[in-house]
Amino acid sequence: MLTHALIGDEGRTIELGWQDGTRTRFHAMWLRDNALDDKTRSAGNGQRLITILDIPADTRIGAAQIRPGALELSFVPEGRTVSFPAQWLSAHAYDRVELRKGGWTSDAIERWTKTTMQNSVPRAGYAAAGHDRQTLREWLSAVRRFGFAVMDGVPTESGALCKVSDLFGYIRETNYGRWFEVRAEVNPSNLAYTNLGLQAHTDNPYRDPVPTLQILSCIENTVEGGESSVVDGFAVAEALQTESPEGFRLLSSYPARFEYAGSSGVRLQAKRPMIELGPDGELLCIRFNNRSLAPTVDVPFAEMGKYYAAYRRFAELIEDPRFEVTFKLEAGQAFIVDNTRVMHARKAFSGTGKRWLQGCYADKDGLLSTLAAIEHGFREAAE
Amino acid sequence: MLTHALIGDEGRTIELGWQDGTRTRFHAMWLRDNALDDKTRSAGNGQRLITILDIPADTRIGAAQIRPGALELSFVPEGRTVSFPAQWLSAHAYDRVELRKGGWTSDAIERWTKTTMQNSVPRAGYAAAGHDRQTLREWLSAVRRFGFAVMDGVPTESGALCKVSDLFGYIRETNYGRWFEVRAEVNPSNLAYTNLGLQAHTDNPYRDPVPTLQILSCIENTVEGGESSVVDGFAVAEALQTESPEGFRLLSSYPARFEYAGSSGVRLQAKRPMIELGPDGELLCIRFNNRSLAPTVDVPFAEMGKYYAAYRRFAELIEDPRFEVTFKLEAGQAFIVDNTRVMHARKAFSGTGKRWLQGCYADKDGLLSTLAAIEHGFREAAE
Repeated sequence: MLTHALIGDEGRTIELGWQDGTRTRFHAMWLRDNALDDKTRSAGNGQRLITILDIPADTRIGAAQIRPGALELSFVPEGRTVSFPAQWLSAHAYDRVELRKGGWTSDAIERWTKTTMQNSVPRAGYAAAGHDRQTLREWLSAVRRFGFAVMDGVPTESGALCKVSDLFGYIRETNYGRWFEVRAEVNPSNLAYTNLGLQAHTDNPYRDPVPTLQILSCIENTVEGGESSVVDGFAVAEALQTESPEGFRLLSSYPARFEYAGSSGVRLQAKRPMIELGPDGELLCIRFNNRSLAPTVDVPFAEMGKYYAAYRRFAELIEDPRFEVTFKLEAGQAFIVDNTRVMHARKAFSGTGKRWLQGCYADKDGLLSTLAAIEHGFREAAE
Repeated sequence: MLTHALIGDEGRTIELGWQDGTRTRFHAMWLRDNALDDKTRSAGNGQRLITILDIPADTRIGAAQIRPGALELSFVPEGRTVSFPAQWLSAHAYDRVELRKGGWTSDAIERWTKTTMQNSVPRAGYAAAGHDRQTLREWLSAVRRFGFAVMDGVPTESGALCKVSDLFGYIRETNYGRWFEVRAEVNPSNLAYTNLGLQAHTDNPYRDPVPTLQILSCIENTVEGGESSVVDGFAVAEALQTESPEGFRLLSSYPARFEYAGSSGVRLQAKRPMIELGPDGELLCIRFNNRSLAPTVDVPFAEMGKYYAAYRRFAELIEDPRFEVTFKLEAGQAFIVDNTRVMHARKAFSGTGKRWLQGCYADKDGLLSTLAAIEHGFREAAE
């Protein structure tokens, strides 16, 4: 696999050649810091046992030997010899040219529209997901890939939606409780608790950190209307970027403000952009909620007109039926959304019958961790 | 207060003059979207009742009238007249030139060093904070301003640290539980559960969203050593930026990777920078943890040497005693850190005696909301 190892820059870098003709360079300091030996990393829990300050600032590679499936390096002045699996080096190579456009997403993400999603909504049965790792894996994997999924066969008892969260992680408790009722009330503290239609939105953008997952579960739904729909915010953001790179720039370059003070003792505020990018331009989070958008005060006067035009266009695209996937939750059904990506909406409903949903928040760290652990277990079993 | 109101740009903007001679411009669209009337905002819960798409795209100001303490505007084509309190307009003016350097923080944040903090550590008694709103306000306010505070008189029973969180918000439950034990174990799943010293760090950078608050509470501490210390990551980041703008740029421009897979069923991973800035350059979050830092693969080869030099310098500054505030937690004492800002460390300790701490995570949204609600209540009472 490795064909050559050339020490360069007086031992500060090394160039590795691979059978396919590619070359990847590494720094001595990077290699030393990421050494896999049991003096550097705990064999038990994998955590690094040393700090960067334990590594001499003038660390260099003194000698390099290609071994079967591995590269053996001697670091000076420490005089420490460490072996790196060739496969590990290949998987962690950082010497590459990446020309990524702002708004890129990883291969784990697949954007969708009504056309691609309406007839293939990912779903699983609650009982099967609880008993069968493969079913759970597929359902969690759909949440990672598409940002939402439906679950059938959830017990129609109050609070049962927490059992959906128990499948992969932990409830994020908030001022709304561990879970909350979503049904029409007389003096609602939140417009969600009315029979009004709700424009597609993400939940709680006034909260920082924002809840990264939401589960909505149906106990009864016999009204006229009240359908749920979901919209892939990443797909809409891409559509905005395609037709208006300037609009995309504006919504990702300036923070919006969100606030909620509908209940006594609660005054939540956040300052985050509607389209959040990482420092490397990765699309990380959509925040969109007309109800809790506070006055925007972080956009310069000269840009505010264009900012509002971009906001309007983003809203128009979000309402465009080509992005909307609709379903009516029946008793015993729930759906989960990645609240950093997928917006949800509901249609208005009439007073006859009853619409009783419950909602809760959870976080993606637990979901992605559980999924990664299942995948890791399957890989190990296969090997 | 208002001296003039000049409609401009065919009604798309308005310039307001103020008694002190300043002028602030607003856009008709911004004003219409932020109207405070009860058709636009719910009088009960303050939420916006309309979406941006309910507002005509060609909205303009047809007429403006200065009233006592208010500005009355008529919007066309809707034909809607809305009154804006002058004070509200002044407070939400966005027509200003702000030259903010990357890494800026709001006035609510005060950076500190050993010199300014060692002898004035913010603290409160648990009983007083539970009964007296002013005491709670001051303690929460210290957490907002300085990113940490000590609490005395916490019950020395297992799990009592959750009562500290109950004072202002909600526990963030994770794979470590609602709370977790911090004491030396034989086969530790985490190096925190040893008697090793731990370099100043933030917790769980491998988790996204990262827990934004941590509480550490002491049930028993009779060992030699085992002191706690805290370091203001925002102060250290500023010191790095002052001596090396390039180093600051590198750590804030490229994501780091963090991971933890020390327990069965858990494989947590995150990709976020060590120094996180908002799109407007606001310093938002520090992530620093040698134990869980994974190989850095998002820095180009040409920058990796400099990136590692910046990481090393950041680590040196974090270890610099001038930033370190030290105290030894006694039984019944707890401290809270803003885990997006303040790093915590512990000294190694010896085998004689017993060191039994418990830790838990919570989030800043609840803390800041509770504080804002208390402040709001005090303001209302004063008026």
